[in-house]
Amino acid sequence: MADQFTPHPEDKFTFGLWTVGNSGRDPFGHEVRPPLDPVDAVHRLAELGAYGVNFHDDDLVPFGSSTQERESILKRFRQALDDTGMKVPMATTNLFSRPVFKEGAFTANDPDVRRFAVRKTLDAIDLGVELGAQVYVMWGGREGVEADAAKDVRVALDRYKEAVDLCCEHIRERAYDLRIALEPKPNEPRGDMFLPTVGHALAFVNELQWPEMVGLNPEFAHETMSGLNFTHAVAQTLWHGKLFHIDLNAQRIGKYDQDFRFGSEGIRDAFYLVRLLEDSGWDGMRHFDAHAYRTEDADGVWDFARGCMRTYLILKDKAERMRDDPEIQDALRSAKVDELAQPTGPLSAVRAASADEGALAAQGYGHERLDQLVTELLLGVR
Amino acid sequence: MADQFTPHPEDKFTFGLWTVGNSGRDPFGHEVRPPLDPVDAVHRLAELGAYGVNFHDDDLVPFGSSTQERESILKRFRQALDDTGMKVPMATTNLFSRPVFKEGAFTANDPDVRRFAVRKTLDAIDLGVELGAQVYVMWGGREGVEADAAKDVRVALDRYKEAVDLCCEHIRERAYDLRIALEPKPNEPRGDMFLPTVGHALAFVNELQWPEMVGLNPEFAHETMSGLNFTHAVAQTLWHGKLFHIDLNAQRIGKYDQDFRFGSEGIRDAFYLVRLLEDSGWDGMRHFDAHAYRTEDADGVWDFARGCMRTYLILKDKAERMRDDPEIQDALRSAKVDELAQPTGPLSAVRAASADEGALAAQGYGHERLDQLVTELLLGVR
Amino acid sequence: MADQFTPHPEDKFTFGLWTVGNSGRDPFGHEVRPPLDPVDAVHRLAELGAYGVNFHDDDLVPFGSSTQERESILKRFRQALDDTGMKVPMATTNLFSRPVFKEGAFTANDPDVRRFAVRKTLDAIDLGVELGAQVYVMWGGREGVEADAAKDVRVALDRYKEAVDLCCEHIRERAYDLRIALEPKPNEPRGDMFLPTVGHALAFVNELQWPEMVGLNPEFAHETMSGLNFTHAVAQTLWHGKLFHIDLNAQRIGKYDQDFRFGSEGIRDAFYLVRLLEDSGWDGMRHFDAHAYRTEDADGVWDFARGCMRTYLILKDKAERMRDDPEIQDALRSAKVDELAQPTGPLSAVRAASADEGALAAQGYGHERLDQLVTELLLGVR
Amino acid sequence: MADQFTPHPEDKFTFGLWTVGNSGRDPFGHEVRPPLDPVDAVHRLAELGAYGVNFHDDDLVPFGSSTQERESILKRFRQALDDTGMKVPMATTNLFSRPVFKEGAFTANDPDVRRFAVRKTLDAIDLGVELGAQVYVMWGGREGVEADAAKDVRVALDRYKEAVDLCCEHIRERAYDLRIALEPKPNEPRGDMFLPTVGHALAFVNELQWPEMVGLNPEFAHETMSGLNFTHAVAQTLWHGKLFHIDLNAQRIGKYDQDFRFGSEGIRDAFYLVRLLEDSGWDGMRHFDAHAYRTEDADGVWDFARGCMRTYLILKDKAERMRDDPEIQDALRSAKVDELAQPTGPLSAVRAASADEGALAAQGYGHERLDQLVTELLLGVR
Repeated sequence: MADQFTPHPEDKFTFGLWTVGNSGRDPFGHEVRPPLDPVDAVHRLAELGAYGVNFHDDDLVPFGSSTQERESILKRFRQALDDTGMKVPMATTNLFSRPVFKEGAFTANDPDVRRFAVRKTLDAIDLGVELGAQVYVMWGGREGVEADAAKDVRVALDRYKEAVDLCCEHIRERAYDLRIALEPKPNEPRGDMFLPTVGHALAFVNELQWPEMVGLNPEFAHETMSGLNFTHAVAQTLWHGKLFHIDLNAQRIGKYDQDFRFGSEGIRDAFYLVRLLEDSGWDGMRHFDAHAYRTEDADGVWDFARGCMRTYLILKDKAERMRDDPEIQDALRSAKVDELAQPTGPLSAVRAASADEGALAAQGYGHERLDQLVTELLLGVR
Repeated sequence: MADQFTPHPEDKFTFGLWTVGNSGRDPFGHEVRPPLDPVDAVHRLAELGAYGVNFHDDDLVPFGSSTQERESILKRFRQALDDTGMKVPMATTNLFSRPVFKEGAFTANDPDVRRFAVRKTLDAIDLGVELGAQVYVMWGGREGVEADAAKDVRVALDRYKEAVDLCCEHIRERAYDLRIALEPKPNEPRGDMFLPTVGHALAFVNELQWPEMVGLNPEFAHETMSGLNFTHAVAQTLWHGKLFHIDLNAQRIGKYDQDFRFGSEGIRDAFYLVRLLEDSGWDGMRHFDAHAYRTEDADGVWDFARGCMRTYLILKDKAERMRDDPEIQDALRSAKVDELAQPTGPLSAVRAASADEGALAAQGYGHERLDQLVTELLLGVR
Repeated sequence: MADQFTPHPEDKFTFGLWTVGNSGRDPFGHEVRPPLDPVDAVHRLAELGAYGVNFHDDDLVPFGSSTQERESILKRFRQALDDTGMKVPMATTNLFSRPVFKEGAFTANDPDVRRFAVRKTLDAIDLGVELGAQVYVMWGGREGVEADAAKDVRVALDRYKEAVDLCCEHIRERAYDLRIALEPKPNEPRGDMFLPTVGHALAFVNELQWPEMVGLNPEFAHETMSGLNFTHAVAQTLWHGKLFHIDLNAQRIGKYDQDFRFGSEGIRDAFYLVRLLEDSGWDGMRHFDAHAYRTEDADGVWDFARGCMRTYLILKDKAERMRDDPEIQDALRSAKVDELAQPTGPLSAVRAASADEGALAAQGYGHERLDQLVTELLLGVR
Repeated sequence: MADQFTPHPEDKFTFGLWTVGNSGRDPFGHEVRPPLDPVDAVHRLAELGAYGVNFHDDDLVPFGSSTQERESILKRFRQALDDTGMKVPMATTNLFSRPVFKEGAFTANDPDVRRFAVRKTLDAIDLGVELGAQVYVMWGGREGVEADAAKDVRVALDRYKEAVDLCCEHIRERAYDLRIALEPKPNEPRGDMFLPTVGHALAFVNELQWPEMVGLNPEFAHETMSGLNFTHAVAQTLWHGKLFHIDLNAQRIGKYDQDFRFGSEGIRDAFYLVRLLEDSGWDGMRHFDAHAYRTEDADGVWDFARGCMRTYLILKDKAERMRDDPEIQDALRSAKVDELAQPTGPLSAVRAASADEGALAAQGYGHERLDQLVTELLLGVR
């Protein structure tokens, strides 16, 4: 039954093939769902109103496929895209599943492993571009360490930079229209990972050879694992002009990487995120990097996908209502939210300033009222 | 009883006046120790072998003191410094205790509060420089929010940048030999704080008007609260050339800001940190931003201070032993730690690389052996 | 403006005097609000629709008051209760603020401190009963340790039990109609506290001399600090027949004790909790142990109090709707929620069971659909 | 090279077959090590000085084996035990890997799944007893939920109790000499799990039909995930007389279940735990539920196993030294640790107590000194 929260391609919702294709394996359990044919994924997601799909190289073309197999797979896949109008806005490389990467990929101590990893990435970049991707996500799933003695972090950052620079060089040589988006994560599967948060990755970009080619793909779950405010992280990313892609899902603080359905945990956080994306005029993808609970059969997978998109649209509607709600707008003014845009300086003004500290200290900002109004907006009672 | 782990000024240990002067107040309890005269703090720390002391403006000169009171306090304090040879390498501003800052300081929504905050900082910079400080720490204790609607984070970062730029302008105008070190913290006392980690602050510095004047003051406890690896954070800070100061203490992940005695929690983490600082040739201060447990009387405070320094020196000695231990050095080679320095590129080499993936995947890196050897080094049985 | 979510005394909402009276002091900041006269608190809360107030001994009668002062305070306070119809359903003791308790209270190593603590509690019990309290909450704010060597936990538990037994003996001797509710907390202000979770406290009760007199006062923030599911904790408490009182507020996992307005964080968790309390027929108090943000002036305090109650009532309404929603009820049946009530045994049936494992494994439980329906109920779009 | 820290069978170290047999699969990566024949595991562990091995039913006898296969496997395995003198002190059931358990096992909503789970457990109990096990561990890896609506926790606890009671009934009927040890865990693989901590499980035991048959198997990693102090948890378990088994490993707070080598993280915590076990006269197994890092090949697995045992013995030696260290003993007396054993009561003494609060409050407890001495003992410099 279609309603105002039914998604359409213009909402720019995308899913990874690995998300709806997740078979439910976890550290303590075997697969519970059969493999999903990427072509079926494309058709089902198109029916649900998605805009496109993304993939890791090995998701689409199994590692070690012959050239002929590769072409045959791509032909079928392209056909599905053509039949449905679905796009492939983003691609990425799997640098974490195969045993060769157990000690790292771009930052593996063994130079041959590093070369193998960069080369796999170059191939995957070619594949992604071939299918139309304009964003290339890099998640360094094995870049990290458990036994700190085994890695010199400063040298690892040298190698990390070198690898990203090499990929950029490849992209420039081939004149691809492709930007790279780094995806931070604090831990899991490594004890501690390099570029653990949005902040660390933003800083890292500044040291690259072509920093303008590289931005970020922040993920809700990954920042939340560290207890950081994801909306703040995305806001800072936007402030630096570095939001190139985004991964939406849900997560509880201080737990294993959960990748739950968007909005299923942290509704308030999800709301502020949607509000930020919409208010900032974000015109990129709303990508879901999540998967269905392991309790689900195939039907549950599509309930999951539908739910991600519906919740986004419901929250988007609330963000619009917030702009139109006179009482909330009044509370925002009481909190002087608009006055933050006024300059503090110049220096002469600061030096000359003579404030009545007591009066400034006495004023209340009405955050309880404001926050309660937003809570009631979220709960649908205003 | 002096032994090889007795500190000396050349070890460059410093303490904040607020650390040994901490009176044990906490969110649920009143003060348990009387105020400590800064002059006494200087004398006692000098006796223990410290190099210097640091302070917030209000620690030394109570807020609202008259010019005459200020001069009288400074005269006594200078005398103590002269008598002991103690230095003041760092100073900072208290922008968090007074009610006027309850909604923020540099990022307060009210422009008058922001001007008040910047002006207080300019005065504190003057005071710090007057006493010889070459590093100015900025911890934005109230820069954050609980009710997300009450703050536009992107605009807050504009104001944060403006405030730091204004301070830099002041420093430049007065030709002070002073660098600024930003101190990140994820939360407490605000629900979420801006520049929550070392990474976020490093990225922020790049947007400043005079980025070369501004670096970081990473704190063990603050990164650890988020579950991040503090040694990795410091390594990345060094990698960016931005380690300007450091705050040493101890902390458990995911808890209130504990500021325990250095090395009392996370011994292994403390060891890797000391090793990094020593191996990197860090020639700045080893500053302790910690305080005695609330169970302690005045004697316990000096036990606390002594313990911080001793543990640092014990760990420094172990870092040296690690360099000389043939079995550990052999394990490091087995883990190929030295091979990380080899370049991965150039691009042509990567493209031409043909690795035997199976052989690469089969090799073991010996991290269990390596880590166990380091553990036994730490435990003093090798 | 009254609406269906305006609270009334029959909703049994209560507040601590220390909650609306919280003056905004925190570990890094001074008080921002003036003290609140308990009599004013009673009147304001009554106007807002609350049922009653609770207090720590020192909240109402400052420590060290003379008998005459005590009587004078009580007379005024009783008058306020009589004038408003407000009740005092619960009382408690402050065993954490004064320096004498810095090393513990019931489990202090010094026997004189322990006797002082128990005696203070006996006096506070008398005070509470005098004002009509039927529940006595015990929060062991200083029962814990940072330096593990300083406390033998097993002996500490002996003393903890002894102290609670002594209080029960006192209650029995004086034939008070009073039950004790233990309040667990994992840490803060101590590094680690005894009886850190609802589970540890439930287990502890079984070892007491009069276990039937003692139950629990679980607190949302305290369980959530440890990342535990508070609703599960309350459900287990109910399962043991030990829910004697409850503390409602809001908290993020892995952070300092926040005590935010109920429902302001963790809306979904708050909803399931309200649903559990209502479905289980809980007839005790809905007590808010929270306080206004430090950004607030006096008006913000009442916004805070109003918000706590409104959100509870909004969620209660949603719990009722959930029972009446045919699609949610259908999803619950698909998830076989009702089949959990069927016995698994007897043993003979288990031994004889021959299941078709493949068929059982293949079934989907529809949790994605169910959870999405609940999410949409919460968001007010169904 | 044998030294004083070389393990011997009388140290009672045991390993799970699944620990040294762990093949390095994780949520993002494939297996990196080949399967390990249980017979080889027995021989290698015996050579290293272990006392015994433990197993899940499926570790030893693959699920679905015919009776003949089972017998053949058991014959070979028994032979290995006989050849080496190794014991099987504990056994357990795998109720988490197979898809049939995806929604729970003892607390699955579907009664047929529950019967299947209990029956599998009865068979595994028979197998364990056949090989000499005297402790049966129950870890409810799938007993929990992500979508809270899908489970009534109180009813789930009814079923959990019923399942444990059924197993006890089976044990009693067959007159086995076997006790059950429940293993708590807060989350992973489920979003929230039932009996999440040692406390919750201790409380649960009291509601069982034969509570004397059931105790606990606390695990270092599991309590630490929640930020709880594991030594305190074990101390409380001992206090209740319920320590039936123990799982030793290492873990960082607030992260995925890491199961690292004992002592590799949290050295201080590991020390206090060993001290507690040794001081309490614990005569059960020192069982390691951990595995080698994924960076390791087969050799690394044995380095891992050796390291677990060595670190235990090193820490045990330090616990003995602590008892003999006069300065530490003096500091313990200063902290009044021994005075905690004095009774606080009787009630008359409490009522009559007249303490000098000021003097009690003024005393210092010397925790900084004490903790520093222990730190230096750990670091091997005293």
